[in-house]
Amino acid sequence: MMRTRPLKVALLGCGVVGSEVARIMTTHADDLAARIGAPVELAGVAVRRPSRVREGIDPALVTTDATALVKRGDIDVVVEVIGGIEPARTLITTAFEHGASVVSANKALLAQDGAALHAAAEEHGEDLYYEAAVAGAIPLIRPLRESLAGDKVNRVLGIVNGTTNFILDKMDSSGAGYQEALDEATALGYAEADPTADVEAFDAAAKAAILAGIAFHTRVRLDDVYREGMTEVTAADFASAREMGCTIKLLAICERAADGGSVTARVHPAMIPLTHPLASVRGAYNAVFVESDAAGQLMFYGPGAGGAPTASAVLGDLVAVCRNRLSGATGPGESAYAALPVSPMGDVVTRYHISLDVADKPGVLAQVATVFAEHGVSIDTVRQQGRLDGSGEASLVVVTHRASDASLTGTVEALRKLDTVRGVASIMRVEGE
Amino acid sequence: MMRTRPLKVALLGCGVVGSEVARIMTTHADDLAARIGAPVELAGVAVRRPSRVREGIDPALVTTDATALVKRGDIDVVVEVIGGIEPARTLITTAFEHGASVVSANKALLAQDGAALHAAAEEHGEDLYYEAAVAGAIPLIRPLRESLAGDKVNRVLGIVNGTTNFILDKMDSSGAGYQEALDEATALGYAEADPTADVEAFDAAAKAAILAGIAFHTRVRLDDVYREGMTEVTAADFASAREMGCTIKLLAICERAADGGSVTARVHPAMIPLTHPLASVRGAYNAVFVESDAAGQLMFYGPGAGGAPTASAVLGDLVAVCRNRLSGATGPGESAYAALPVSPMGDVVTRYHISLDVADKPGVLAQVATVFAEHGVSIDTVRQQGRLDGSGEASLVVVTHRASDASLTGTVEALRKLDTVRGVASIMRVEGE
Repeated sequence: MMRTRPLKVALLGCGVVGSEVARIMTTHADDLAARIGAPVELAGVAVRRPSRVREGIDPALVTTDATALVKRGDIDVVVEVIGGIEPARTLITTAFEHGASVVSANKALLAQDGAALHAAAEEHGEDLYYEAAVAGAIPLIRPLRESLAGDKVNRVLGIVNGTTNFILDKMDSSGAGYQEALDEATALGYAEADPTADVEAFDAAAKAAILAGIAFHTRVRLDDVYREGMTEVTAADFASAREMGCTIKLLAICERAADGGSVTARVHPAMIPLTHPLASVRGAYNAVFVESDAAGQLMFYGPGAGGAPTASAVLGDLVAVCRNRLSGATGPGESAYAALPVSPMGDVVTRYHISLDVADKPGVLAQVATVFAEHGVSIDTVRQQGRLDGSGEASLVVVTHRASDASLTGTVEALRKLDTVRGVASIMRVEGE
Repeated sequence: MMRTRPLKVALLGCGVVGSEVARIMTTHADDLAARIGAPVELAGVAVRRPSRVREGIDPALVTTDATALVKRGDIDVVVEVIGGIEPARTLITTAFEHGASVVSANKALLAQDGAALHAAAEEHGEDLYYEAAVAGAIPLIRPLRESLAGDKVNRVLGIVNGTTNFILDKMDSSGAGYQEALDEATALGYAEADPTADVEAFDAAAKAAILAGIAFHTRVRLDDVYREGMTEVTAADFASAREMGCTIKLLAICERAADGGSVTARVHPAMIPLTHPLASVRGAYNAVFVESDAAGQLMFYGPGAGGAPTASAVLGDLVAVCRNRLSGATGPGESAYAALPVSPMGDVVTRYHISLDVADKPGVLAQVATVFAEHGVSIDTVRQQGRLDGSGEASLVVVTHRASDASLTGTVEALRKLDTVRGVASIMRVEGE
């Protein structure tokens, strides 16, 4: 039942992802038409620099006026792969107003304004799909919001940034320090010239907000996500992790509180056991581990970035949106009915690995242990090592049982005030147990 | 926009999976209603033995007359978790005829009669969903037929049977033989009293047929799938695998031929490198590795069986079908437009690991190598070991480059005719490279 009038697609942005989207739309045109039930046609491509030659794209389709393109009125689907907040946000809402559905790969925008964009889509009876916004090619949004729609998700634990996973994997496997590993990532094209968005975990935080919102059917904004970068992870931290049978990953962690009444979302480096499936995710790959009531433990693994992988996710959405259009329906919109409060970081309960530099003399361990006890933080193991460098200092490594982040913060503040504690070398959370 | 008239669900079968479906429909009723946009109501439960007490299910809903239940005319969705070919097939088609959509977990039926069932669903404008039929809770059917709808899948490589993975993992980690590992799987409830369907790979073959059909948009029937069980895998095979840096898994492998003009589907034990993500899938877990043009390598991991995990998949489908019903649309049906021929096993090209018992005398290696060369099978490595047991025999392990299964079969037949070859101890394919 093939319809002959083609569905018209406007492409906003023709960089690494956009050019792959255009290429696949051309090379796989017959397959796409068969799967959709109608041909799809690239009706316009909005770019900033029209002078750049774009192989395989008809120059007559190229425009610098993205607004006019989305206002044309005959566009069925707008594919937004510009990124950033503006002009993407205005273009998307304008598209809805002019009768187009939208497929976006824009994590920053979705994390900041997802609710408003969903509302605009619903108001105009249009679809808003964004599988490519989280973990590139890995099907994740659709499994969470459709496959697990009959289940109750309790935790999402993910490696959602390939750049930082490449750096951490390098540090782990070679013993390199952070700067050395970052330099290699930059040289190989895994890190941008300014790596801030990746290494300070802004990118991962946006993805955590999107994942938490979908997993818990509640609104989680970027501001709700606790964020800690990975620039201070050291080779010594990896050595400590190995002694515990762990490695270190930058994790996005979205959790439902034990009582079910609230959720948390956070991004930070953490130790995870080598036996955890996420521990063996190497290089720039991404993986997301999902724990739910009925399904148990699921993991989704694949390339988290790159032109072709991201385009694969965009095109999967494009096919879905086109099918919806032909059947006169829309897909699942925002599901935020649960409206659970997002608790602050202080309420998060987990385990901690703390390295202290202490005076190497009797009674120090007792002092330190007293501080933990006073703050209600129960100690699992302690390891004390004299430095043997004549400094009179020793290293004390404490691993705690589960405690609230607020209690741990209080403990660390009190420890810093002890004369016998010369410094807190590192604090790292222990996850995935 | 909650509608108050509930959607009515008929449950066919109330065993391990069905009772979990009923339980979750009750305990998560509010969540399901919010996600669907209307309440769902269990309208009837067809069972064979009504006398068994079923906790939490209103006895008034229980019937032994499944046919009458699906013919009632007021049923929106029939959930079929009986398994087997009949009466499931007739009940499903009857459901379509009487205005109900169907969610099924029935791999055997879908593998055998998927095309006819899809046609019946389409004829009556109903949905047929079956995420639970392959790899239990793992979202796989939906990602393949929706998320990757804009991509071109070239290969699906999966561990899709938990029982056999448990047995093989046990053999690998403990050095146990097949029978010992099977006995443990039976004692722990991972294997049934009659394990034939699992260990002879009938179960995995059905799943391979379903996966290949969806991945390649073509019809693949159970009879098209080459099938080899894992009862002859030995501790010696695991030792050989380890020497190659491999382990052994029972794999379902669906491939598009290099020229794109045909596909193959097969299930057999195979060596895979320890560095491959599938190698670390432990115990009764399942995982499916997908290779596509644009997305690259993806993997989906989780529990492949069990009441609650399978129910999670069933309920995800139930939510989707109910949403479709409310919007007046149907989801994606069968996609078999590519209509590619399924090639026989002889056309499959892969690598082989062959263990031969040979006479321990000069010239044998030259004889053996000549036979490989005559059949066009190129040798990668050879390892010869004297037995040192005075038998005058040696062991010769040959690993080939990629060759067709037909060439390899011809090679082995010719080897068996050599006087100096006392026996072919094992032949195993090497995958995942």
